[in-house]
Amino acid sequence: MPIPTASVPLPLAVHLTRGGKIESTHRIHAAVMQGGGDIVAAYGDVNRVIFPRSALKPLQTVALVESGAATRMTVSDAEIALACASHSGEDMHTNAVGAWLARIGCSEADLGCGAHAPYADGCKPAAVLANNCSGKHAGMLTLAKFMDAPVDGYLDTAHPVQQMILSTIADLCGVPLTACDCGIDGCSAPNPSMPLSALARGFAHFMRADRAGLRRGSACRQIYQAMVEHPLLVGGSKNRLDTALMQAAQGQILSKTGAEGCYIAVIPAKDMVIALKAEDGAARAAQAALYALLDAHQLATPDVLAAIEPLCLPRLRNWGGADVGATVIDRN
Amino acid sequence: MPIPTASVPLPLAVHLTRGGKIESTHRIHAAVMQGGGDIVAAYGDVNRVIFPRSALKPLQTVALVESGAATRMTVSDAEIALACASHSGEDMHTNAVGAWLARIGCSEADLGCGAHAPYADGCKPAAVLANNCSGKHAGMLTLAKFMDAPVDGYLDTAHPVQQMILSTIADLCGVPLTACDCGIDGCSAPNPSMPLSALARGFAHFMRADRAGLRRGSACRQIYQAMVEHPLLVGGSKNRLDTALMQAAQGQILSKTGAEGCYIAVIPAKDMVIALKAEDGAARAAQAALYALLDAHQLATPDVLAAIEPLCLPRLRNWGGADVGATVIDRN
Repeated sequence: MPIPTASVPLPLAVHLTRGGKIESTHRIHAAVMQGGGDIVAAYGDVNRVIFPRSALKPLQTVALVESGAATRMTVSDAEIALACASHSGEDMHTNAVGAWLARIGCSEADLGCGAHAPYADGCKPAAVLANNCSGKHAGMLTLAKFMDAPVDGYLDTAHPVQQMILSTIADLCGVPLTACDCGIDGCSAPNPSMPLSALARGFAHFMRADRAGLRRGSACRQIYQAMVEHPLLVGGSKNRLDTALMQAAQGQILSKTGAEGCYIAVIPAKDMVIALKAEDGAARAAQAALYALLDAHQLATPDVLAAIEPLCLPRLRNWGGADVGATVIDRN
Repeated sequence: MPIPTASVPLPLAVHLTRGGKIESTHRIHAAVMQGGGDIVAAYGDVNRVIFPRSALKPLQTVALVESGAATRMTVSDAEIALACASHSGEDMHTNAVGAWLARIGCSEADLGCGAHAPYADGCKPAAVLANNCSGKHAGMLTLAKFMDAPVDGYLDTAHPVQQMILSTIADLCGVPLTACDCGIDGCSAPNPSMPLSALARGFAHFMRADRAGLRRGSACRQIYQAMVEHPLLVGGSKNRLDTALMQAAQGQILSKTGAEGCYIAVIPAKDMVIALKAEDGAARAAQAALYALLDAHQLATPDVLAAIEPLCLPRLRNWGGADVGATVIDRN
């Protein structure tokens, strides 16, 4: 895979303005990559080692489908979407994950993700099913059951479930990944660090899964379809960019957010993927940068961009409702 | 005032780590300045134009005291502390601001700051008195009454109250400031942009007010004392760095946070002030940087640093309570 040989290009800059002046600035590292693995545009340091966090979920779900576990355990496309979700903890999410767990003989007591208040309503009590990652964990428990592996300890990097997930991701991303590369994610699952370019490559392979074996190709296609057909399950009904973007793009774009300013997008019809990381971890910067890259590289139609602009490039309003500033892209 | 003449020094870096690896990085611009105006340490670009936001409140309050309004309108030291506060909206704050307004013949209906839920409990209803800036606005209304200026429009940059405040700040900071320099703050008050070094200079003059006229000297000393003697009113009873730092320092350090990653600290016994801005606006970065600078320049005792370390350099815990990372200072 060609890596830019000159000095590191400038990062993409996202500014927050106030009264027309720059108040704060975010730096974005990003790779725009073709399905074959060529980087067509690099911003900042595409070799920066990052934690993809929840942006990795579509790849973390490949093992569930590719292994045959999803078919054997009658995992629906809606459940596959939930396995890839950072959901808002609305009833549609928690009820579906609860039913899935019951069907495989588990309960929320088996989930190791910890409890937090639903994203959709931070004033509701913390709950394990409302954890944005509860679907991913239901998928991991499903894989454990399929493998006849113990449910206890399913989050250990040495557990067969995590071993299978990690080796599948390493294969897709083209980098060796061991327990030593892993940090512990917000939900206590292992999350492997890797160069940003490797994350992009993983999604390039995911997108062009027809080049992989029949089983992997079929698994990746099924995950893509499940996510774009269930955008409400991947995010939520309010203020969720993944949901808004996938709804507007009507199957043409898969997107997935990750904590600390990560984002990926997959655009098969353009044979292109985007992987980005806000250096400082700010979600507001990652969302603005995703818009900027979809726009600059003509990867989304004007109506799709218009649909996500209020979430990506919001005007800034103060407590009195006054318009005090803006979110602005500066490609240097 | 000497400005570093070489190329811009490196910013201070604050890293968030996960599993011992850097996950996100913040860049901090900072000036450590002596009372006479000499910069003894510069990080990043001390001439970067910033909005001080609420870090400016102690200087915004100078006009209230210096004009004689505070004395005439029997403004207490507790109320001066509230005028400088970004308070948590607890009963002690809202009751005191309400009583202050009543005393000057105003009510919360006169406050132009807008309503938000108290910082202390984001699930309570939004309220105008709970706005973290309600004390600053009570001070502005007090000044309007004292000047026989209309209460209506007290937030316009052309209003006599804002004109007096702006010219006092310009004088302290040593820069010309007009309405054109102002953005609209979160609370709808004008907030002047200025170089970071000018903000530092303003607080250097504030600290060494004995060099200024008798009235300004007395005003600045009174504001300093009011804040350090009422740290709970300046912040709140939980998770507020200004409060924790001023409580621990027992009168030796004044500190004030501002939105979008601003921070100032004033340490008269060391004849030193700190002014800093996180480039990306992150509060977590500003708090870590304040600790780093107090430590590196020996401006706080070990027990003061120990008291604020949990707020400034927190270990990162996930939803399951696991220790997954840290906040780390890197001075390059």
